[in-house]
Amino acid sequence: MTVLEKLVQSLSRLPGLGRKSATRIAYFLLTAEDDFNARLSTQIGSLKSSIKRCRVCGNFTESEVCSICSNPARDHTLVCVVEQPQDILTIEATHEYTGVFHVLGGVVSPIDGVRPEDLTIADLLKRAEKDGVQEVIIATNPTVEGDTTALYLAKAFKDTPVQVTRLATGIPAGGDLEYADRTTLARSLRGRTPLSY
Amino acid sequence: MTVLEKLVQSLSRLPGLGRKSATRIAYFLLTAEDDFNARLSTQIGSLKSSIKRCRVCGNFTESEVCSICSNPARDHTLVCVVEQPQDILTIEATHEYTGVFHVLGGVVSPIDGVRPEDLTIADLLKRAEKDGVQEVIIATNPTVEGDTTALYLAKAFKDTPVQVTRLATGIPAGGDLEYADRTTLARSLRGRTPLSY
Repeated sequence: MTVLEKLVQSLSRLPGLGRKSATRIAYFLLTAEDDFNARLSTQIGSLKSSIKRCRVCGNFTESEVCSICSNPARDHTLVCVVEQPQDILTIEATHEYTGVFHVLGGVVSPIDGVRPEDLTIADLLKRAEKDGVQEVIIATNPTVEGDTTALYLAKAFKDTPVQVTRLATGIPAGGDLEYADRTTLARSLRGRTPLSY
Repeated sequence: MTVLEKLVQSLSRLPGLGRKSATRIAYFLLTAEDDFNARLSTQIGSLKSSIKRCRVCGNFTESEVCSICSNPARDHTLVCVVEQPQDILTIEATHEYTGVFHVLGGVVSPIDGVRPEDLTIADLLKRAEKDGVQEVIIATNPTVEGDTTALYLAKAFKDTPVQVTRLATGIPAGGDLEYADRTTLARSLRGRTPLSY
């Protein structure tokens, strides 16, 4: 295999890249400035050594505690529970959320052999007690596994003063009833909200 | 900017990657095996130093002369002229072509300030004479610039024994007349081929 083919093979393993887009990127790199290639190479090579997990919430961070957990302006009694660190980025992009986060590290999934003990649920319970958390918003994906995990968490918090809520499922904003699938529509009906004017 | 943001910024500069797909790749790398990241980093960092241009055709290669030009089984009297090295890959994928290639390095484009002298046309003429080339297939893109370059080449070879041909333009195989644009259809009409049975 040539150097170029080896690079294409590695690039094809990245998510969202097929053989064609990997080839396109490889050819781009062949004619890119030397500076750019050197920088990208260093950034990829040193990435994992310079980034660790936040000791409080499990988010990726360069320091011991991430910038959200160490921000005194955030509401530390409101915790949003997500599956993966990248979900934090997505929620932060709404600029709507002022609380902190907790990364579960996945969802309960018997098929994939993921048990509740494999997730950071015990840490979450401990943290909730220690920090006097008042509300836990469960933001796992609205899939069978995400829902199961949400139920499991609701149960785990049952005998605590913590209120457990779940992100609303429904028709996406700007969407069309005609194209909504049955499950989404059914959940959207069940979760209907009162309108007042 | 954090280390992660810097990586996302670099990845976003790659062709076909927006901010979202770059972020997805960055998070993938955060949890990828150390081995994989190290390999990809080295492959990107050393790419340009290990790959040069073929002295004969201008294709990317690790040796002085590329594997196509140094293959005695290929027909060296048939030269396919392409804009960029990656076009060679595309044509090779058809497994239909047995000749060799010549990389122009672009197309004549007054708007972008590319003159015929900026392309490897002189090399092609020299090569055609030296190697006794019989046919030159012009495989520049069917754009205004690609067509202009094709005409320029046809003129350049006018007083030589070399036959100059052009890739056929027309409706793509499996395509639909209804969706063909006017220009494609017009060229497809002009370039109609006789049917015999």
